[in-house]
Amino acid sequence: MRTHKCGELTKQHTGQTVELCGWVHRRRDHGGVIFIDLRDRTGLVQVVFDPDVHEAFSLAEHVRSEYVLKVKGSVRGRPEGTINPNMGTGEIEVLVSEMVVLNESETPPFPVESEIEVNEELRLRYRYIDLRRFAMQEKMKVRRDVARVLRNFLDDHEFFEIETPYLTKATPEGARDYIVPSRTHENAFFALPQSPQLYKQILMVAGMDRYYQIVRCFRDEDLRADRQPEFTQLDVETSFMDEDEIMHIMEEMIRQLFQKVIGVNLGAHFPRMTYQEAISKYGIDRPDLRIPLELVDIAEDMKNVDFKVFSAPANDPQGRVVAMRLPKGGDLSRKEIDDLTKFVGIYGAKGLAYIKVNDLSAGVDGLQSPIVKFAPAEVWDSVLAKTGAQNGDLIFFGADKASIVNEAMGALRVKLGHDLGLLEGEWKPVWVVDFPMFAWDEKSRRYAAIHHPFTAPKCSIEELQANPGEALSRAYDLVLNGTEVGGGSIRINRPAMQRAVFEILGIKEDEAREKFGFLLDALKYGAPPHGGLAFGLDRLVMLMTGSTSIRDVIAFPKTQSAACPLVSAPAVVPEEQLRELGIKLVKQPGKEKA
Amino acid sequence: MRTHKCGELTKQHTGQTVELCGWVHRRRDHGGVIFIDLRDRTGLVQVVFDPDVHEAFSLAEHVRSEYVLKVKGSVRGRPEGTINPNMGTGEIEVLVSEMVVLNESETPPFPVESEIEVNEELRLRYRYIDLRRFAMQEKMKVRRDVARVLRNFLDDHEFFEIETPYLTKATPEGARDYIVPSRTHENAFFALPQSPQLYKQILMVAGMDRYYQIVRCFRDEDLRADRQPEFTQLDVETSFMDEDEIMHIMEEMIRQLFQKVIGVNLGAHFPRMTYQEAISKYGIDRPDLRIPLELVDIAEDMKNVDFKVFSAPANDPQGRVVAMRLPKGGDLSRKEIDDLTKFVGIYGAKGLAYIKVNDLSAGVDGLQSPIVKFAPAEVWDSVLAKTGAQNGDLIFFGADKASIVNEAMGALRVKLGHDLGLLEGEWKPVWVVDFPMFAWDEKSRRYAAIHHPFTAPKCSIEELQANPGEALSRAYDLVLNGTEVGGGSIRINRPAMQRAVFEILGIKEDEAREKFGFLLDALKYGAPPHGGLAFGLDRLVMLMTGSTSIRDVIAFPKTQSAACPLVSAPAVVPEEQLRELGIKLVKQPGKEKA
Repeated sequence: MRTHKCGELTKQHTGQTVELCGWVHRRRDHGGVIFIDLRDRTGLVQVVFDPDVHEAFSLAEHVRSEYVLKVKGSVRGRPEGTINPNMGTGEIEVLVSEMVVLNESETPPFPVESEIEVNEELRLRYRYIDLRRFAMQEKMKVRRDVARVLRNFLDDHEFFEIETPYLTKATPEGARDYIVPSRTHENAFFALPQSPQLYKQILMVAGMDRYYQIVRCFRDEDLRADRQPEFTQLDVETSFMDEDEIMHIMEEMIRQLFQKVIGVNLGAHFPRMTYQEAISKYGIDRPDLRIPLELVDIAEDMKNVDFKVFSAPANDPQGRVVAMRLPKGGDLSRKEIDDLTKFVGIYGAKGLAYIKVNDLSAGVDGLQSPIVKFAPAEVWDSVLAKTGAQNGDLIFFGADKASIVNEAMGALRVKLGHDLGLLEGEWKPVWVVDFPMFAWDEKSRRYAAIHHPFTAPKCSIEELQANPGEALSRAYDLVLNGTEVGGGSIRINRPAMQRAVFEILGIKEDEAREKFGFLLDALKYGAPPHGGLAFGLDRLVMLMTGSTSIRDVIAFPKTQSAACPLVSAPAVVPEEQLRELGIKLVKQPGKEKA
Repeated sequence: MRTHKCGELTKQHTGQTVELCGWVHRRRDHGGVIFIDLRDRTGLVQVVFDPDVHEAFSLAEHVRSEYVLKVKGSVRGRPEGTINPNMGTGEIEVLVSEMVVLNESETPPFPVESEIEVNEELRLRYRYIDLRRFAMQEKMKVRRDVARVLRNFLDDHEFFEIETPYLTKATPEGARDYIVPSRTHENAFFALPQSPQLYKQILMVAGMDRYYQIVRCFRDEDLRADRQPEFTQLDVETSFMDEDEIMHIMEEMIRQLFQKVIGVNLGAHFPRMTYQEAISKYGIDRPDLRIPLELVDIAEDMKNVDFKVFSAPANDPQGRVVAMRLPKGGDLSRKEIDDLTKFVGIYGAKGLAYIKVNDLSAGVDGLQSPIVKFAPAEVWDSVLAKTGAQNGDLIFFGADKASIVNEAMGALRVKLGHDLGLLEGEWKPVWVVDFPMFAWDEKSRRYAAIHHPFTAPKCSIEELQANPGEALSRAYDLVLNGTEVGGGSIRINRPAMQRAVFEILGIKEDEAREKFGFLLDALKYGAPPHGGLAFGLDRLVMLMTGSTSIRDVIAFPKTQSAACPLVSAPAVVPEEQLRELGIKLVKQPGKEKA
């Protein structure tokens, strides 16, 4: 139906007769002539209707925004002075000789051509209008490019794309599973996968060697800003590689991805950092390394000070006391510091102590803070030296349970970094390694897996059992600008180790058998050493397009209340259909339409 | 962990030191030396343990089938006379200097190395063993190649891969939907998509221009041999192309697919056939053109014969009378013909009349059949001429309601073609076009859509409404060797036409509004002309690998009772979880474990 796309015409096409299809982006009548910016996925081109071409002109007179047109015409250079350098096709225009209106359009609920902000509910309900906007077209394009580059890389590296089932069995964290009744099985349910973790391990046992899949995952949970009930993962698993080899090849993939899709060079070698170092310096296991602020431990200095707020956590094995230097932070107003105090309160911090460094040469007198008096000068000397303080700086302090200090000061660090424009460099990837195997959960009085129960430890069964809390895992997370974009591990490939881990996690033998019997069986029949990774595709695309909402990088996302305003899902289902599935509603819907 | 893959070693590697990982496929002890065929995804290689290399040798003595090994050794040519031409690596072997047992294996429930047939339930339960077998590895490889070639083709032709939701709204044929309760929405359910049909149309309205997706589809229905609860489709949609352009580009894609993946040339141009011709000649809209048998209409000849079995349907507008010539079929025994009579009985045929053509020169006397006497010689002359009968042939007859004749004689044609080895050529693609828009359903006394309600007709609204039964659609099916591998159509892109079609289908306005309101809305805002296609990926791979079961081309399929013996899905769900979802079981499970 067309010879060219709108956005691809250039001066080189001058003199050619072309046929184009597209939408009326803008229409202007000027000097008796009608100008239409015609739009398709590739961009805009100006098409011109001259009154001399009577038929097309009189059709064009009735054309409005978002009408779908087919035009035939000849490409000509624009007259001097009307060239538009902001438009890819700005040097030319198409003088129309024939036109067909392929479809009409009512006035859209919001304009396509302007970038004015529109209520998100409306955008999602009329997603077909929203997706016509250039910003959204660009995001969808990046998303498809991301999938394509990842696939090509993995195909070229002998990874086999293999599909795993969506109708499967409830997973360990079963409460968040979506479950699916079926007509064929009374009282039994499928579950939608939270990830294909066990299937990909089974594929390794099956000798598939290298596997990948761009796959949907499902989680029925309360939604946060960057979560969706269904989200997309790049899932990768390989046999016969250790963690270094896996990190190396995945790093190369991500490097190529950024280079090819958005022209960004992430650097020849991604740094590695232990979990311990990340928590120590940044309070978090996904540090944003663009922010040049660091937590510095000062518990040693504070053990004997006459200030319980500091000395108590400094002497508590579960406590932590840190200082964080904000260069030139001395300019912060009282109000600004009050706001920051409120901010750290969100994370449970009971206050936010600080010192303004006015004049280092004046000793303690050069320090401005209500807390200076609580400790002798040599303590402050030591703290200032550890933080590397300069005149004009501000030092913040955090002192509490370690978990609160880490969360509060970690968040404060990120907030200051962004609010004060301190970011250094645009892209800072880092591998975080040497995670603990388990975290002790006070509430349930047992260990929980930091990654998942299939992650291999760095130690032997005996060492693991002797001291589970100290054991490190063979897991690795890829963090980019403070976002965890991917994570994975070497997996357990022997039944004895898998059973030992289940035991430490308090999973009883019959429960393990019922839930993971097939995995324990599979490990008995020659399971190769294997490991892998999963990347959050939505998050990667968010980062690469600079999007603040995950909903902007998904063609048809759910709202924050997990609904789809476009098709009106979820919806009521006829009672008869439920009966066929062997289920009924707990609360009968009363007068509601069933 | 390795320098090479097992199957890639050749004479060129002679003298090199290599490291390999893999499974023990076979082990032989011969002349004091241990030979192991080591297997990975790429194939087998013979590794040799000499007693001189003491450590490795003594380890190898304890190695059994399916153990996972890492070996280091040097490649050497095999001695004259021990070269194995049936093995890719049959000219060389690896003399082992070091070995590590990476994992042990119990004796597998069935052997990997032999191709003996194994009960399917067992294969599925131990899928990780089953998938190690060469035949299955090959099928998975073809499947990944298929996806890859299709993706590359579509990427190169500017189709954008876009993901559509799996948690969506019930579709028209809602009864077969899998539905999904959620914690966030009381009494409302998502549905898993039977296809992304409406989403891809919405993407066209959104100006995405060309879309594709390799996507899972779901249908909760009674399973036939070649059906699965979840199956995979290559889903394609494009704007601004008519049916000829779409068939042209898709045909090129399928041609490249067969060429690149299995080296088959499907021919420069796929023939096209109208629905009418397909039914007339083959009794079915997906004819297997490899079979050189055709139905020939002989109602005109039989209208006045003295044999009601023929004359009644010949005079019934709903009836059909056909002859089908089986060349050299005169050899068929009485028993064979009896069996065929039973066979057509499955399809409702009340009998299977036939004539043996013994001697054409003898006129009626040369014909052998109890039915010859019922019609005059000139009738048989005409029938013989129409079928092109030769001496030694057998002519079968079908006479009944047209639907019964078509099904029974169509099936007979296929059966004879396969059983008697009549297939001509290996691959016979054909486009079937000019389908009717609607089929009249006697039971519900209304029209049903032959494709789906979004298919565009070839005629105007007025013509459609005047005579729905005669209207043809702009649909097209791609048929290969009697299998429908793909189908699609140009879609309706104007609200008035869509409403007219809903009306003819007896979908009331409020029902249309409730189910398809968003589509009707979308068509109002500048919906471009668009159309597309969906290919059954599983079926394509079945055809290309010569598989007889769809379960053989899916890594983790469900059984014919829609269960997964590997993970034991579906499964009972704790009552508490159901309560959180606002549902309960109709039949309480009694003593069963909840």
